[in-house]
Amino acid sequence: MKSYRQELWFHIPARRGFVNITPQVERCLRQSGILEGLCLVNAMHITASVFINDDEPGLHEDYDRWLEQLAPHAPVSGYQHNRTGEDNADAHLKRQIMGREVTAAVTQGKLDLGPWEQIFYGEFDGRRKKRVLVKIIGE
Amino acid sequence: MKSYRQELWFHIPARRGFVNITPQVERCLRQSGILEGLCLVNAMHITASVFINDDEPGLHEDYDRWLEQLAPHAPVSGYQHNRTGEDNADAHLKRQIMGREVTAAVTQGKLDLGPWEQIFYGEFDGRRKKRVLVKIIGE
Amino acid sequence: MKSYRQELWFHIPARRGFVNITPQVERCLRQSGILEGLCLVNAMHITASVFINDDEPGLHEDYDRWLEQLAPHAPVSGYQHNRTGEDNADAHLKRQIMGREVTAAVTQGKLDLGPWEQIFYGEFDGRRKKRVLVKIIGE
Repeated sequence: MKSYRQELWFHIPARRGFVNITPQVERCLRQSGILEGLCLVNAMHITASVFINDDEPGLHEDYDRWLEQLAPHAPVSGYQHNRTGEDNADAHLKRQIMGREVTAAVTQGKLDLGPWEQIFYGEFDGRRKKRVLVKIIGE
Repeated sequence: MKSYRQELWFHIPARRGFVNITPQVERCLRQSGILEGLCLVNAMHITASVFINDDEPGLHEDYDRWLEQLAPHAPVSGYQHNRTGEDNADAHLKRQIMGREVTAAVTQGKLDLGPWEQIFYGEFDGRRKKRVLVKIIGE
Repeated sequence: MKSYRQELWFHIPARRGFVNITPQVERCLRQSGILEGLCLVNAMHITASVFINDDEPGLHEDYDRWLEQLAPHAPVSGYQHNRTGEDNADAHLKRQIMGREVTAAVTQGKLDLGPWEQIFYGEFDGRRKKRVLVKIIGE
C-alpha cells in the first residue's frame, strides 16, 4: 500500500469565500503515483469546509446567502462561543452544514468524479492563512 | 490491496425521492471479494445525496418537508443559480444538508453497519437517469 | 494492509450531549499499530453523530440551541416519524446537519488533525447505551 500526504494553503481576503481546488488535488494525485485507492481532502480548520458541488458563481452566492440565513454572523453577541473573545461562532455552524471533508475514489490514476463534481474549499472565517489536508492511500 | 468499482443507476420519476440502496451495495461488496476495508458510496451528481438513516416512510416524509422548509424550491427566481436557465438551485442546497457520500467499514466480508443503519440514495432533482459510485478498497 | 476495528460505547444521561472522544480514538490508533492510512469513526445509531469541531463549551451550547431551532423536538406530533410511537424524529434530522461520520488521515502513527480539530460524539436521543465504530486501515 502506498500513502501520500500534502497540505494546501489558502488565504481568503474576505471573511467568506469559495475556491475550486480540484486542479490542486489532481496535482497531488499525480505526484502520489497512486492508481487505485481513496483520496481524503479535509479542512484542517474548524471554521472552513471542503465539499463537492458545482463551479457556478450564482450558486456560490446562493450558498453564501443561505448559510447566512441559517446561521447569521450578527448579532455576534447572540452566540455563547463569542464570549471567548471570538466573533466566528457562525462560521463553526456554517461549516457543519457544508461539511469538513470529502472522500473521492481514485480509479486508473484519476479522481473518479461525476461530470459536474468539483472540489471546493469553503472559507467562513478568512483573512488569514489556513490549511487543507490531502491524504491518498492505495496502490 | 484489492479495489472494486461499480456504478449504480437510478431514475426517480418525481423531482424528489429516497431509495434504500443497501442491498445493491451489499451485492457490490460480495462481488468485490473484499473482507476487510472501506466502502465509499457517493452520489456522482451534485443535486443528489447518499446518506445513512432509517428505512421508515414517515421519516422520509419528515425529511422531505424539512428540507423544503430549509431550502424551498419556489420561488425559483429567488436563486442566482437559476438565472443560468436551471430551476434546481434548491436541490444543490438540500444535498449539502443530507451529504454527498457515506464511508462504511467492511468487516469479515460484510458492511459493518449498526442495527438500523440503511444506505439511501436521496434525489432532489430527478426525472432523469443519475449515478452513484461504489468504490471498495481492502483485502 | 492491516485493519483494526473497535466499538466505543456511550451512555449520555440527557437527551442531548456532546463528548470529546479524541483520546479514545487515539488509543484505538495506538492499539492498531497502523502508521499510515485512514481512520473512519462513525455513529452506529441514526440519531447520533460523529463530527470534528472545537472543544469549547459555549460553542456546544450554540450548536444545541441552533439545532433545536432548525429541527425542534416539540411538538412531537409535528413529525410523521413519531406516529410509529417514537418521539425522536427531530434527532434523525439534527444528526443529518452534524453528520454521521468522520474520516481522519493517519500519518506517522498519529491522527493527522489540525491544531483545533477534536472528534466528538453528538447524542440527540440519549438516556441509553449507544455505539461508535472505529475502523482503521493502512500499514
